[in-house]
Amino acid sequence: MVRIGFDIGGTRIKAGIVGNDGAVLEKRSIPFRKGRPIQEITQEMRALAFEMLENIGMAGKEAAFIGVAVPGRLDRTGDVVLDAYNLGFHQVPLKAEMEICFAGIPVRLVNDANAAALAELHLGALRGCTTGVLLTLGTGVGGGLILDGKMFNGGMAHGVELGHMTLMEEGDLCTCGNRGCLETVCAATWLEKQGQGTAETVIDRAKKGDPVCREIFDRYVSHLASAIISLAALLDPEIFALGGGVSLAGDFLFEPLRQEVERRSFFKHAYRIVPTALGNDAGFMGAAMLSNHF
Amino acid sequence: MVRIGFDIGGTRIKAGIVGNDGAVLEKRSIPFRKGRPIQEITQEMRALAFEMLENIGMAGKEAAFIGVAVPGRLDRTGDVVLDAYNLGFHQVPLKAEMEICFAGIPVRLVNDANAAALAELHLGALRGCTTGVLLTLGTGVGGGLILDGKMFNGGMAHGVELGHMTLMEEGDLCTCGNRGCLETVCAATWLEKQGQGTAETVIDRAKKGDPVCREIFDRYVSHLASAIISLAALLDPEIFALGGGVSLAGDFLFEPLRQEVERRSFFKHAYRIVPTALGNDAGFMGAAMLSNHF
Repeated sequence: MVRIGFDIGGTRIKAGIVGNDGAVLEKRSIPFRKGRPIQEITQEMRALAFEMLENIGMAGKEAAFIGVAVPGRLDRTGDVVLDAYNLGFHQVPLKAEMEICFAGIPVRLVNDANAAALAELHLGALRGCTTGVLLTLGTGVGGGLILDGKMFNGGMAHGVELGHMTLMEEGDLCTCGNRGCLETVCAATWLEKQGQGTAETVIDRAKKGDPVCREIFDRYVSHLASAIISLAALLDPEIFALGGGVSLAGDFLFEPLRQEVERRSFFKHAYRIVPTALGNDAGFMGAAMLSNHF
Repeated sequence: MVRIGFDIGGTRIKAGIVGNDGAVLEKRSIPFRKGRPIQEITQEMRALAFEMLENIGMAGKEAAFIGVAVPGRLDRTGDVVLDAYNLGFHQVPLKAEMEICFAGIPVRLVNDANAAALAELHLGALRGCTTGVLLTLGTGVGGGLILDGKMFNGGMAHGVELGHMTLMEEGDLCTCGNRGCLETVCAATWLEKQGQGTAETVIDRAKKGDPVCREIFDRYVSHLASAIISLAALLDPEIFALGGGVSLAGDFLFEPLRQEVERRSFFKHAYRIVPTALGNDAGFMGAAMLSNHF
């Protein structure tokens, strides 16, 4: 039996068919357009699922399970999307809508960062860890925690908000209303604002030795090091996996980051700092893995 | 059967006899004097234990278990104190020394903040919680985490260092070598330095309306609110229990703190912020509770 994972993002809906061993048998994506009725969206997801099943010669058969990752907060039952600002979803009973549309196939929802952490735990950079941290350095900063070898969804099932740990108490105002959150200084957006270009061009210019971009990038590394040192003091994890756009800078990011962490850490516990392994597939893969088979 | 808990601190060794239900049957303390051979210290602890047993009419009988809380880091086996700066203990095989001195009674060691969290979990302010945070606001800032209803000793068993989460990346230098740790702005020492008096007198003057001390105390509350909001974003706990000297300010601390947290929290999840219940006994009680009977 196969399962289908969806990852609904602000610009695209990604989807994949995932086999029993976690292998991605097929994947596709379609644009996500904000502001339409939820039924239209679930109908498009259904068409996408059938197209993928057909492509791998499973037309007519049904998936055993559907998992859906969303960039937002779920209610405690996990059935309703309370708020997913980038999707324009507020109080959307997405599980029920999916189950109506997919005629009874069991559906589960998950926060996208948690889904990514789960996929990295089973098949990616966090494989085999007991305590690990995923940080995604994109437009915002998200992340997931692995505690006791399992995805941690917050003590009261509200999820975790790694991007909103405080890093600079008197720092810039964050979208959440607080000041100096990790997200305000470690998102790709910070590089863009400081360097007046895309995060990619700022990093490229820094690589080529542009002194202004080099200095901006050094400050970025320093912020990220602070976040890692702080999380290490709290959780004493074995491993940090970094994903998202900024992580694509590769060794240009990871090498100075590891040095800075080593230099400033009093508690030198030799945790590892590595890139994520599954890239953009992690969201739908993790969603599919919510099936009890994992 | 009874168990004995010790809590070795920088100025005193506290000890108690703890019954099956966690009740403290007897307690005493003696001065701790730094710099002596470990065998002298364990001999004094033995004399103290026998004196307590005699006081409750159990002379001649032995305890089933001895737990020892220390303000420092243990090795991964939990048998050796790697560093406890306030005690002058470095690489001290305390478990083995205790077992020699107490002729075979099983001994376990524990970090003092973890011991306090464990005692508060079983019999104090954290009773019945699944996810909870203990913060002790004393000379330094320590604390313990309850995750999944159990004391969390760090992902790699190095313990947790709540006092060294970053709060102000470019803040004051901390004893750990990093900058702007929670401890630099939420320890009693911060109030003392800012207010040029003991923490108690600064708080008293603030209560009486002294504008300088009032402003200092407001800033303290703001720092502590930042720490709580940050920890809530990461762990989504049900409850925060605050202990240590500064927590004795009572409602004068807790009321504005709760308001500030409420005002600045985007994620309003209605966690509780309460004083610890067990005071200075929590360390030896938690140590005694390391016995498998709990």
